Amino acid sequence: MRISKPTLIINTSILRNNISDMLGKIDNINAFRPHFKTHQSIETGNIFKSFGVSKITVSSVSMAKYFSSEWNDITIAFPVNLFELDDINEIAEVTKLNLLIESLDTARYLEQRLLKPTDVYIKIDTGYNRTGLHPHSKDIDSVIKYANQTDKLIFKGFLTHAGNTYTSKGQKEIDDILNNNYLILGELKRRYIKDYPGLIISYGDTPSCSLANNLNMFDEIRPGNFAYYDIMQYHIGSCRLEDIAVAVACQVVAIHPERNEIVIYGGAVHLSKESIDGDNGFQLFGYIVEFSPEITYDSGNINKESLIWYKPVVGTYLSNLSQEHGIIKASDDFIKRTKPGDLIGILPVHACLAADLLHKSQIMI
Amino acid sequence: MRISKPTLIINTSILRNNISDMLGKIDNINAFRPHFKTHQSIETGNIFKSFGVSKITVSSVSMAKYFSSEWNDITIAFPVNLFELDDINEIAEVTKLNLLIESLDTARYLEQRLLKPTDVYIKIDTGYNRTGLHPHSKDIDSVIKYANQTDKLIFKGFLTHAGNTYTSKGQKEIDDILNNNYLILGELKRRYIKDYPGLIISYGDTPSCSLANNLNMFDEIRPGNFAYYDIMQYHIGSCRLEDIAVAVACQVVAIHPERNEIVIYGGAVHLSKESIDGDNGFQLFGYIVEFSPEITYDSGNINKESLIWYKPVVGTYLSNLSQEHGIIKASDDFIKRTKPGDLIGILPVHACLAADLLHKSQIMI
Repeated sequence: MRISKPTLIINTSILRNNISDMLGKIDNINAFRPHFKTHQSIETGNIFKSFGVSKITVSSVSMAKYFSSEWNDITIAFPVNLFELDDINEIAEVTKLNLLIESLDTARYLEQRLLKPTDVYIKIDTGYNRTGLHPHSKDIDSVIKYANQTDKLIFKGFLTHAGNTYTSKGQKEIDDILNNNYLILGELKRRYIKDYPGLIISYGDTPSCSLANNLNMFDEIRPGNFAYYDIMQYHIGSCRLEDIAVAVACQVVAIHPERNEIVIYGGAVHLSKESIDGDNGFQLFGYIVEFSPEITYDSGNINKESLIWYKPVVGTYLSNLSQEHGIIKASDDFIKRTKPGDLIGILPVHACLAADLLHKSQIMI
Repeated sequence: MRISKPTLIINTSILRNNISDMLGKIDNINAFRPHFKTHQSIETGNIFKSFGVSKITVSSVSMAKYFSSEWNDITIAFPVNLFELDDINEIAEVTKLNLLIESLDTARYLEQRLLKPTDVYIKIDTGYNRTGLHPHSKDIDSVIKYANQTDKLIFKGFLTHAGNTYTSKGQKEIDDILNNNYLILGELKRRYIKDYPGLIISYGDTPSCSLANNLNMFDEIRPGNFAYYDIMQYHIGSCRLEDIAVAVACQVVAIHPERNEIVIYGGAVHLSKESIDGDNGFQLFGYIVEFSPEITYDSGNINKESLIWYKPVVGTYLSNLSQEHGIIKASDDFIKRTKPGDLIGILPVHACLAADLLHKSQIMI
């Protein structure tokens, strides 16, 4: 194995632990519909499969298409894009697709154009204010009643994404969001369960699912990022640094000891421009980890063991990114032991975006 | 032609104007080595070719490989990544490659491992502080002398990227940077020209090249972004809004009039998370333009004329991005005339990153 360009290294033992921990919070594995937008990888999906997972969530029709060769129950957790109805019908030929609706207009259009009866969920906005119907919106009732009269739309329940946990800090604030979501979805369930006995409530987001001990109050959970975690989740408090399952291997191309900087091949097109404000106010694009010093540009075959990393390097972080370059602010110590031609790892701020960018450049260890 | 997913629309008449304007600043077309990292597209490259351009710049070995089928004089304006020497040798079989060095160690390694004599440039740091040797560094002399003794390294000159123009504002500040770069590179040229009569000084960056009237003082210029421009360049002052040659076509998937928001299919994986702070302090991910209202999700064949856009919609901007979603803050007027299933355009903050993300989803009009 050679690594000549920025490459996503996926540590499968950490990944397995993360999946196993999340499964420990629910009694029934059928309540687990993990979001696959994080990894967008058949190979990582196969690890979920080995735990008995059989249903997945995605966030685009393209992803549904990609996973339809391996998975036969896929929820597209994104408002239906009317331009993609032909693709949706095509994918529905080979796999069970579940769709999200939040307006009567979309429901009417789907009834006209879908070729098969399809399970639909109503997206509820529980406070994130991105998409979905307000829990007290009269449209909820109109959409459900309309679906009930149609041949194609089978109303299956309510779905929410508590994305507001991403701007929260700490256990209490995040617990409050989870509890509030359960109150809202639980009330909707009680209102409609008599007329729609099979309806479920489906809940997502990594921070609150990671911090909860028990998620059995929901009929379905859809966290995604928890599989890999990242620096953003660490800063929110959802995970420990040692739970981060991915590092982007990057090549050192220049050293500037006079300003404590290391230049790597690894930029916005590999890691994304996602950053967070570090505790001291600096902008942070990733933490640095070290692989085995045996790896050099001249070593032919890199073995997987030499790509295991441990804790991030102290006092050292990725401080800036241009298109192809990354700039590391490094401690004196780290500067001294680093030279052009070394391979180092970046724990990304946002694993989902790094995995998307490095879709074709991944190694599992 | 159908557009079912986020797609980069390239307006070729604006693109041609931008190329023509830049060529107007130099007397000799051989002094023009545009940076192709912006578009990474053979098709856009062919438009440069139609102006007589014969040399290009790229910022990775992968890009050099991609363009080597069509171009036979390519400078990789990135510190040599030692892990990619095999690829460099392979590409050098089919095209003339020029490399950048900034250390004696790299020079020694190249001498050992390159298979062919190769033109090399020394990267000078004129104040951007990303990569390169300081203009007074003694290493400049050592590297040149070393190259002179070798069989493989042919010293050709000094190259700089004035990336500090990106954090500048207005004509004066940017002119000062350009003049300072000329002073530094000019002095180096005078120092070495007797011993190396063919040496050149090569200068890059879009802001200062766009704002200068005349660039003949440099032997070579390497701007890249100017081909497409973007909102960042507009905010720096390098271009007018009507000079922006690319818009990302995105589908409207939900409308929330109660908070003046429109949700589009178009997120960080299509546009990148690059943002700027708008004049009112808000974070800005793009401006909004309109295509012909004839385009709907049900219209089969979209003709190219209907994808021409004009000025951005007033009081309306892309305010947030998650992985696949974009949130537009919209004026009352725009909210009223927009509905799910409309196709709208986003003028991106950073065209290079959007073009990279939408490499396989582009239409030229």
